[in-house]
Amino acid sequence: MAAVSLLRRALPSLPLLEWGQRYDRETLMGDGVAALIVTIMLIPQSLAYALLAGLPPEVGLYASVAPLLLYAVFGSSRVLAVGPVAVVSLMTAATIGEHAAAGTAAYWQVAITLAFLSGAMLLAMGLLRLGFIANFLSHPVISGFITASGLLIAASQLKTLMGVKAEGHNFVDLLAALARQVPNTHWLTLTVGVLATAFLFWVRKGLKPLLMGWGVGPKVADVITKAGPVAAIAVTTSLAWGLGWQAQGMKIVGAIPQGLPPFTLPTWDAALWRELAVPALLISVVGFVESVSVGQTLAAKRRQRIEPDQELVALGASNLGAAFTGGFPVTGGFARSVVNFDAGAQTPAAGVFTAIGILLATLLLTPALYYLPQATLAATIIVAVLSLVDFGILKRTWVYSKPDFVAVAATLLATLALGVETGLLVGVGVSLALYLWRTSRPHIATVGLVPGTEHFRNVLRHAVRVSPALLSLRVDESLYFANARSLEDRVNDAAAAQPALRHVVLQCSAINDIDASALESLEAIEHRLRDAGIALHLSEVKGPVMDRLKATDFLRHLNGQVFLTHFQAVASLTPDILDGAAATTPTNLARETSHA
Amino acid sequence: MAAVSLLRRALPSLPLLEWGQRYDRETLMGDGVAALIVTIMLIPQSLAYALLAGLPPEVGLYASVAPLLLYAVFGSSRVLAVGPVAVVSLMTAATIGEHAAAGTAAYWQVAITLAFLSGAMLLAMGLLRLGFIANFLSHPVISGFITASGLLIAASQLKTLMGVKAEGHNFVDLLAALARQVPNTHWLTLTVGVLATAFLFWVRKGLKPLLMGWGVGPKVADVITKAGPVAAIAVTTSLAWGLGWQAQGMKIVGAIPQGLPPFTLPTWDAALWRELAVPALLISVVGFVESVSVGQTLAAKRRQRIEPDQELVALGASNLGAAFTGGFPVTGGFARSVVNFDAGAQTPAAGVFTAIGILLATLLLTPALYYLPQATLAATIIVAVLSLVDFGILKRTWVYSKPDFVAVAATLLATLALGVETGLLVGVGVSLALYLWRTSRPHIATVGLVPGTEHFRNVLRHAVRVSPALLSLRVDESLYFANARSLEDRVNDAAAAQPALRHVVLQCSAINDIDASALESLEAIEHRLRDAGIALHLSEVKGPVMDRLKATDFLRHLNGQVFLTHFQAVASLTPDILDGAAATTPTNLARETSHA
Repeated sequence: MAAVSLLRRALPSLPLLEWGQRYDRETLMGDGVAALIVTIMLIPQSLAYALLAGLPPEVGLYASVAPLLLYAVFGSSRVLAVGPVAVVSLMTAATIGEHAAAGTAAYWQVAITLAFLSGAMLLAMGLLRLGFIANFLSHPVISGFITASGLLIAASQLKTLMGVKAEGHNFVDLLAALARQVPNTHWLTLTVGVLATAFLFWVRKGLKPLLMGWGVGPKVADVITKAGPVAAIAVTTSLAWGLGWQAQGMKIVGAIPQGLPPFTLPTWDAALWRELAVPALLISVVGFVESVSVGQTLAAKRRQRIEPDQELVALGASNLGAAFTGGFPVTGGFARSVVNFDAGAQTPAAGVFTAIGILLATLLLTPALYYLPQATLAATIIVAVLSLVDFGILKRTWVYSKPDFVAVAATLLATLALGVETGLLVGVGVSLALYLWRTSRPHIATVGLVPGTEHFRNVLRHAVRVSPALLSLRVDESLYFANARSLEDRVNDAAAAQPALRHVVLQCSAINDIDASALESLEAIEHRLRDAGIALHLSEVKGPVMDRLKATDFLRHLNGQVFLTHFQAVASLTPDILDGAAATTPTNLARETSHA
Repeated sequence: MAAVSLLRRALPSLPLLEWGQRYDRETLMGDGVAALIVTIMLIPQSLAYALLAGLPPEVGLYASVAPLLLYAVFGSSRVLAVGPVAVVSLMTAATIGEHAAAGTAAYWQVAITLAFLSGAMLLAMGLLRLGFIANFLSHPVISGFITASGLLIAASQLKTLMGVKAEGHNFVDLLAALARQVPNTHWLTLTVGVLATAFLFWVRKGLKPLLMGWGVGPKVADVITKAGPVAAIAVTTSLAWGLGWQAQGMKIVGAIPQGLPPFTLPTWDAALWRELAVPALLISVVGFVESVSVGQTLAAKRRQRIEPDQELVALGASNLGAAFTGGFPVTGGFARSVVNFDAGAQTPAAGVFTAIGILLATLLLTPALYYLPQATLAATIIVAVLSLVDFGILKRTWVYSKPDFVAVAATLLATLALGVETGLLVGVGVSLALYLWRTSRPHIATVGLVPGTEHFRNVLRHAVRVSPALLSLRVDESLYFANARSLEDRVNDAAAAQPALRHVVLQCSAINDIDASALESLEAIEHRLRDAGIALHLSEVKGPVMDRLKATDFLRHLNGQVFLTHFQAVASLTPDILDGAAATTPTNLARETSHA
C-alpha cells in the first residue's frame, strides 16, 4: 500500500507524458543534431571515466546507455545528459579501492553494487521528498571539494601519461610516488600524452576563434571543437597501429568486448552494503547536487523549471539502470549537458538518440579502439578536470566572508590529505559548525534616537540620544537556544552597570523566530529585571512571532508593554529624551559591550 | 609563556580580591547563619549523593570541602554552593559503572579520575573562553534530560527503599527488575523508607504553613523546614540503634572512616582517559549549565553579575580540588544555593564556613551515623529529585513550538531508554538538526501594496495590489547555504509561471547576513532572470549586509537597482500599481507557492 502511494507520487508527474504529446518534426531535428554531437563527445569521455574509476573501458559505454534512456523517461530537465562523470568516478574508485583490486571481476561487481545502492538511495530520497538534504552541502564546500577532486584526478592521470605505476593514499603521497617513478618514465608514452594534452587545450581555447576567423559559422565551429577529442583519439590510435607503439611498450586500451551491455545484478551481502552505505550516500548527494545545478541553470535559460524531487527519482532510476546493465554510478554531467543544450536539444528524446548512438558504438566501434593509447584518454581527463580546479574561490571567500573561506580551505585540504569521503564530511561538519557558531553570537546593538527623527541607530556608529533610565537593544538575529543566553548576558551586564536603569526595550524588527529556549530566556530576563525594579518592553514584534507569543504566559506576565514602533516606546517611557534633556553622548557601557 | 598568559587571564579578575577588602561584621553574621543552615542541609545530601554515585558515603563529605573552598576563591557568584548534586552523581554512576564494580577501590579511583578530567576540561574551557559551548544545550534538551534523570534516580533508589538488589540498563529494565524483586522485599526497610519519604514530602510542603499558623516567624520556620532531613536521619538512626534493626536484616550505612579528606591522585592511564573523555565533557557541560543558571538567577536578584568564563575556571578548580581530596565530580547545586541565598549569605565566605562545618562533621560526626538506615538516605534522594521531574515542559513546548516539543520528547525518551550519556547526545543532535531544518526552509512571502499606503503585506493574508510585471518577495531569514537554494527555487518557479514578469524585487529588511553560498545563489538567480529578460532588484538592505555586498562583483553586475525602501522600488518600476490600474486580487501563483 505504501509502495503504491509512493509510486503514485512519482508517476503522475512523469515528464515524458508532457513533452511526448507535442513531439514534431522540428523538435526531432533539434534533438537529432544534438544527439549526434553529444555522442561524439561522450564516447571518449565514457571510456576515460571508466578507466578513472578503475574499471574496463567498455563499462563506461555500458553506463551511458540505460541511464540516458531512464533519465529520458523520469527526468524533469529537457537537456540533462546522464552518464559517468569525473568526480563521481573518482569517488567510485576511492570507495571500491578499499574492497577489491582494480581490474578484477570483484572490483567491477562492487561498482555495480555501489550503483545499485546509490540508485536505491536517490529513488528513496525522491519518493520521500528529501531533496533538501543536498542544501546542506554549501557552495564553498562544493567548490573546495571539486577543486581538490580535480587535482586528485589530474594527479592520478599523470601516471598513465608517464606510462608508470604509482599509488598514493593522498595527494602528497601520490605526487611523491610519481616523483620516484620519474626514472621509469616511458618517454614515448609521455610524449604522445603531453602532445595530446596540449592539442586538447588548444582545441578548447584556440580552435573556435581560429575557425571563426576563417569565416566558419559559430555553430559549425562549435561542432568541430567538440570533435577535438575524437580527432586526438583517431590520430593517436592510427599512429599506434601504424608505428607499432604497443611493441615499444606503450599501454593501449586493447580488446573491448563487442556487444550489448550485459544484464548484471548487485551483490546481496549485508556486510558489504553496510560498508558501502556512507560512500553511496555521499556519491548520491554529490551527484545530485552537480546534476541539479546544471539542470537548473539550463532550464532557467528557456524559462523552464526542474523538480528537484523528480530529479532524485530520475537519477535513482538511472543508477539502478546502470547497476542492472554492467555500469557504475552516474549523474548529470556539466559539459555534456551544456553541449546538448547549445546544440539545440529540445526534449529528452535527444538523450534517447544519444543512448542509441553509444549502443551502436558498443556494437560496432570497439574493435577500432584496440590500439587507442591509454595516455590519450588520460589527456582527455586531465583537460576536462583542470577546468574544475578553481583556486579563485579561496580569494573570493577570503574577501567576502572569513567563515566561508575557512570552510573552503578545510574542505580542500581535508580532501587532498584524507581523501574524497572524509574530505566531504569534514567540509559539511565545518560549515555547519561555523554557521551555528555565527548565529550563536548575534549582533546586538544598543540604539539611540537620531535627534529630530523617529529613527534609532547604533550608539557606536552615530551621535544619538540615550537616557540613563532606558536601554534600547536591537537584536539582529532570530532568537534560539544557542544565542538566547548571550542576550541574557547582555541585558544582565547592562542592568548591573547602569544603576539608573528603569526600562529595557528590545527592538524585535529582525527577529523572525523565538524558540522555546529563547522564550525561557526572555522570561528569565524579565524576572531578573523585575527583581531589580526594571521593566522589560518589546517593540516592532513581527506578526507571526506575536501570534505565537500570544499563546504563552510571557505576554500576560510581562511587567512592561509591547509597542508597535520603537519610537512610541521611547517617547512614552522617557519623554525627556525628545526635548534634548538627555545625553547625546554614547554611554561607556554601550561602547564596552556592543559587538559592532 | 602561554601558560602564564592564560593564568593572567584568570587571575586579575579573582573575585576574592573584590569582596575580601570590604568584609565587615554584618557580612560575617549573614554568612555565618547561612553557612550553618546549608551545613545542616548538606550533610545528609552529601552522604546520599555519594551512595547514588555508587561510592562510600564519606566520599560525599570529602567532595563538599575542598570544592567549596576553591569556589570561594575563584567563583564569581556570591552565593553559589558547590558540591555533589543529583544529576551529576547519576552521570558519574553511569560512567564508572562501565569501568569498575560499585563499592570497589577501583570504582572510587575512576571517580577521582573523572573529577580530575572534568575539572581540567572546565578549567581549559574557562581559560580559552569556550563557555559558549554550553549554549548548544537548549532549554528543552536540558528539561527533558533533567526530568528523565530524576525518574532514573528515583527508580534507582526504589531498590534501597525495598531493601533488595536490582540493576537495569534502562528505565524499563530497571522497573522490570524491581517488579521481579517484589517477593524479596524487606518489609521493615520498606516501611521505614516509605514513612521517611512521606515525612520529608510533608516537611517540604506542609510544615512551613503549619509552623507559621502557630505563630512561628517565616525565617525560623524556614530553618526548621531545612532541618527536616536531619530530623528524619536522627529519628531513624536512633530507632535502628534502639530496636536493633540491623540484626533484622536492614541495611545501614555502617562504619564511616573518621578524619580529614585523604590526599588522592587520578590514574595516569591514557586508555582510561580516552574512554572517560566524552563522559567527562558531558558531565562538565551539564554541571556548568546547571551551575551558571542558578548563579545567574540569584545574582540578578541583587543586581550582581556572574562571569560565565570565570565560573568555568572556578568549577574547574573545584573539581580538581575534589579529585585531589578523594571526592567525585561536583557542581553548583540549585537547592543549596537558593537556601544559602535565602538565609542571607553575602559573600563566598559563607561557602568557606560551610566547608568548615562539613569538615567538622567528617572529623566528629561520622560515628553517630553508623546505624543510619540506607533507606532514609534513599528517601532523601527521592524527595529531592522528584522536584526535578517536570512533565509540564512537554505540554508547554507542544503549545508553543512543535520542534521544541520533539527535542524534549526525544531527549526524555532517549535518556530513559539509552542512558544519560546517549540521551544527552541524542538531544543535542536532534535540537541542532531541527534548528538547521527550520532555517533551511525560510518563510518567503509574496507581498503586495496595501492600497493608499506605502506598506507591503503578504498577498495571502491581505487584499493588496500586485502587478503581473513585478514580483515582490520578502525573505524572513538570513540567507545561508542551507536555505539559499529554496530562494532560487521560489524565484525560478515564479519566473516560469508568470510570463509577463519583468522585475523581481527582494525586500531584504529581515536579512541579517548573506553568506558566500547565498551570494552565489543570488548571482545565479540574477543570471537566470537576466537570461529570461527579467531584472532583479533589492530593497531595504541592512547596513552591514550592504557593506559586504559592496565589496563583491554582484552589485556591479546587477542588472536591476538597489532601493532604499520597497515602496520606492515598486513606485519606480511599476508606477501603474499606484493608480489602481493593477489587479488587487492575489495571483494564483502566489497562493500556490507561498508557505504562509
